[in-house]
Amino acid sequence: MKFNIALLAGDGIGPEVIDQAVKVSDAVATKFGHAITWKPALTGAAAIDAVGEPYPDATHDVCAAADAVLFGAIGHPRFDNDPSAKVRPEQGLLKMRKKLGLFANVRPTFTFPSLLDKSPLKQERIEGTDLVFLRELTGGIYFGEKGRRDDGETAYDNCVYTRVEVQRLAKKGFELAMTRSKKLCCVDKANVLETSRLWRETVQAMEKDYPEVEVSYEFVDAVAMRLVQWPNSYDVLITENLFGDILTDEASVISGSMGLMPSASMGSDIALFEPIHGSYPQATGLNIANPMATVLSAAMMFETAFNLPEEGKAIRNAVNKALAEGIVTEDLADGGKAYGTKEVGDWLAANI
Amino acid sequence: MKFNIALLAGDGIGPEVIDQAVKVSDAVATKFGHAITWKPALTGAAAIDAVGEPYPDATHDVCAAADAVLFGAIGHPRFDNDPSAKVRPEQGLLKMRKKLGLFANVRPTFTFPSLLDKSPLKQERIEGTDLVFLRELTGGIYFGEKGRRDDGETAYDNCVYTRVEVQRLAKKGFELAMTRSKKLCCVDKANVLETSRLWRETVQAMEKDYPEVEVSYEFVDAVAMRLVQWPNSYDVLITENLFGDILTDEASVISGSMGLMPSASMGSDIALFEPIHGSYPQATGLNIANPMATVLSAAMMFETAFNLPEEGKAIRNAVNKALAEGIVTEDLADGGKAYGTKEVGDWLAANI
Ligand SMILES: CC(C)[C@H](C(=O)O)[C@@H](O)C(=O)O
Ligand SMILES: CC(C)[C@H](C(=O)O)[C@@H](O)C(=O)O
Repeated sequence: MKFNIALLAGDGIGPEVIDQAVKVSDAVATKFGHAITWKPALTGAAAIDAVGEPYPDATHDVCAAADAVLFGAIGHPRFDNDPSAKVRPEQGLLKMRKKLGLFANVRPTFTFPSLLDKSPLKQERIEGTDLVFLRELTGGIYFGEKGRRDDGETAYDNCVYTRVEVQRLAKKGFELAMTRSKKLCCVDKANVLETSRLWRETVQAMEKDYPEVEVSYEFVDAVAMRLVQWPNSYDVLITENLFGDILTDEASVISGSMGLMPSASMGSDIALFEPIHGSYPQATGLNIANPMATVLSAAMMFETAFNLPEEGKAIRNAVNKALAEGIVTEDLADGGKAYGTKEVGDWLAANI
Repeated sequence: MKFNIALLAGDGIGPEVIDQAVKVSDAVATKFGHAITWKPALTGAAAIDAVGEPYPDATHDVCAAADAVLFGAIGHPRFDNDPSAKVRPEQGLLKMRKKLGLFANVRPTFTFPSLLDKSPLKQERIEGTDLVFLRELTGGIYFGEKGRRDDGETAYDNCVYTRVEVQRLAKKGFELAMTRSKKLCCVDKANVLETSRLWRETVQAMEKDYPEVEVSYEFVDAVAMRLVQWPNSYDVLITENLFGDILTDEASVISGSMGLMPSASMGSDIALFEPIHGSYPQATGLNIANPMATVLSAAMMFETAFNLPEEGKAIRNAVNKALAEGIVTEDLADGGKAYGTKEVGDWLAANI
């Protein structure tokens, strides 16, 4: 098969980790007889510097025409403590999600047995954890009207959801639950928010279409607790944009494998794949960043966007082998030998 | 001194744990020569059953006239999965916070050395944790306009903050930081929300009035992570209502001492004290609920509302002694003897 893949390296360590994912994907393509054409495009602070905005139209055109998007990381510290900055890298991310219609962010949290001791949680709490969040990504308070009134003394952000938005996200959740343990948890704040009540009633009305799925409803504050206490009690969780932002990040650190967690953002036409870690500016250019999350995002891309599970499996096997043999960057080296970002990428490509 | 204390026992285990706090407070009053008049009033599901609403005017009058409010817990499962219920216990809580002007929720998370092994976190992660959240409690998305349009197909919740609301909460945060390690973390989502940008710029402008306080600004998703990774890296954190709801609950379970954590909600005129745990309906009437969080809330009341640190200390000492001698309810008994709620209360009162 032939694929056009938009390549958005972004900021910080983005370019370095993306390079490794490209190398590994190319090795997969060679092995399985596919042809990948990579279409690099600018995003993030890099795009602001080059053309004045973080998600230029040219980049959008590349993404919209591609079969999938592979994304590195964006964000730069020079924007972080400046609430008045007019253009920020994150705006590019939000604009991209909206314009590409990436409404479902898929964020798995699972454990690698060899990394369990990296978890801040006790082993018996984290063992066996294998959950997936589906976070709504193009609605809610992120995209509602926001602004100031009273000469800037009052600020507001509107959170808005329509039933259709909830349904399309929940549908993905039910479908995913059917392929796993048939347990679905809807996370909301229905005791306070009207949008949450819409979420809850919409999901409740869909239950009859998936009689095998056992659905539970939990408040976001309760989930924030239980994720730390008994993460392995969850399977598929669906939630709105802001709750998802907070909870998926919380979930990402419990396993000890954060540097390895991939993610997907899916729309009706196209999907984007990216590591969940950030742009890690301090590590930029040092050849120390762990490329595995980006490489595993490429695995998700083969599996989900191209429906090629064997190709994905080849990547996952190489990563598992690297972990077993200690071919890892310094974050996982544990006093042993630390390999560079590039060396880990080379090894993975050679072991496809 | 003479005190009138409004006593809102509420639902579930509320009445049982409140009884113990009353007993212990009375013992303190006897020992130190104070006179407490308790003013019981209805709230929560109990008030809905009795008079049709969760925070009746009569209850408000009792609270408004009191020197402090001691609160048990509210909430009843029969309201939880009914998004259409017209009257809910939680509405009483929100109405009470608003009408009493309780704008600052003070939520400490600290560790008891004897309970460290109850933490889901590894000992080296949790040791030494001693942080306090100040959660804004009468603004934000909880109290903005909310509703439906498009025949119920669209739901919305407005998040609104004024500079004055941020200032009064932040002022308490700076003041608290001055009495502790002079570190303050402002938690927001300023990369997305206009209300967060108002928070950040307001706190930044206040920094010059507290030159000794070192202020940091972190995004809510990053804090949700670091709370699990390095909770002992935090000291005082200030945040808006919804972020505070999620993060304080997350923080509450990391120490292993959740059943012991007290809280205060402070306004300009009056303050309310309550355990952070919920109404725990399954345990109602079984004499098994741990009363220590409520008893420690009474300690906070003496210290904070009445400015009587010695009296607070007497309660804390009794609790520490009970923990050391194993006079605990089943949640802490660890295979040893479990005492009843009432027996623990009696023991604490006798040991003041
Ligand atoms: C950078 C920021 C706007 C973004 C978000 O809040 O969605 C990030 O935290 C994420 O989760 O992808
Ligand atoms: C019951 C609910 C309305 C309340 C809140 O969200 O504020 C509770 O979770 C709390 O934190 O006191």
